[in-house]
Amino acid sequence: MSLPKAIRDVVAVFERLPGIGPKSATRLAFYLLNVPDIFCEEFSDAIGVLKKNIKICKKCFSVADTDLCKVCADKSRNEREICVVDKAIDMLAIERMGVFKGVYHVLGGVINPLEHVGPEDIKIFELLERVRNLETLDKIEVLIATSLTMEGEATALYIKNRIEKLDIEDDMVKITRIGSGLPVGADLEYADEATLSRAMNGRKNM
Amino acid sequence: MSLPKAIRDVVAVFERLPGIGPKSATRLAFYLLNVPDIFCEEFSDAIGVLKKNIKICKKCFSVADTDLCKVCADKSRNEREICVVDKAIDMLAIERMGVFKGVYHVLGGVINPLEHVGPEDIKIFELLERVRNLETLDKIEVLIATSLTMEGEATALYIKNRIEKLDIEDDMVKITRIGSGLPVGADLEYADEATLSRAMNGRKNM
Repeated sequence: MSLPKAIRDVVAVFERLPGIGPKSATRLAFYLLNVPDIFCEEFSDAIGVLKKNIKICKKCFSVADTDLCKVCADKSRNEREICVVDKAIDMLAIERMGVFKGVYHVLGGVINPLEHVGPEDIKIFELLERVRNLETLDKIEVLIATSLTMEGEATALYIKNRIEKLDIEDDMVKITRIGSGLPVGADLEYADEATLSRAMNGRKNM
Repeated sequence: MSLPKAIRDVVAVFERLPGIGPKSATRLAFYLLNVPDIFCEEFSDAIGVLKKNIKICKKCFSVADTDLCKVCADKSRNEREICVVDKAIDMLAIERMGVFKGVYHVLGGVINPLEHVGPEDIKIFELLERVRNLETLDKIEVLIATSLTMEGEATALYIKNRIEKLDIEDDMVKITRIGSGLPVGADLEYADEATLSRAMNGRKNM
């Protein structure tokens, strides 16, 4: 049975979202038919204005309501501790912990030659500028928290090399990489070799 | 970290959809930030016009583009074989098989005293009218395909009783219930008692 066009259109847009297949998309579309009209309006409006109302933070390139994101606008955050992430949602994951007191830098992607993403396509130059512009009165830490994928690792290495070439005294900038090993709750039996080898190399005194 | 308002709004609407929790909702909202603007517009429009552009079939109360749904408008369908379903998406599931050649009747719910849904709140009266208005030249079959839940079963029973009380010769209307038993691919070990008991009672000659 071919569905009415209005439903087909909604199914089509839902299907384009990640993790939503044809069956879920159909179920969601039919679900919307049974909700109060006002919810559909709110839904439509929220998505319609999303891109218009979102700003990009001028400092860290995260999402923001105004020119600066909440973190960059917060004077209590330590500007000399910059956590470099791939995308804004990664920053959200770290913020959720509520432990990190530094600031962020959102690259907006990782270096990926297969998809034609080079260092100039992501915010690496801007990161170098940020680091360069910090007064070197006190130590600076750049914590690279890009994903633990091949591309994330390559990007981390690239950033490390570029920061080291900046005209800053060697002992003033500390470059760190987010810890890698077995996730909490993991069973050694099912760990892949790469993760296990990382975990072994990263062993710590108890 | 509190997210920018535009994102929070989108997360909030996604969260209200069935099967989408806070984490998925956030992921979807951030996903939308990275798609071309035109997709967000299409998304917003499709949902915005959904309710306005959907009609309810005058005959079977399914979803339709015009006054009649595709099935009711199709002259080749057998009007004397009415499959009664709970909601329009159930009809879609049966249509997908491509085997059933009769027509449908969408109740728009099942009798559920706990949620204050009585027989008068769903399209039972309209179903009785449909059956009564069919000329009794040939046999009529009403196949009740409401869900196999307590409410679906009660609704089926109620409809059966009401049809039997109609002023139609007894042998002209056949009331059937969709088959119940173990689903295809099921393992007896994991079947619940109610289903297993149904399956045993519904055994057939091989």
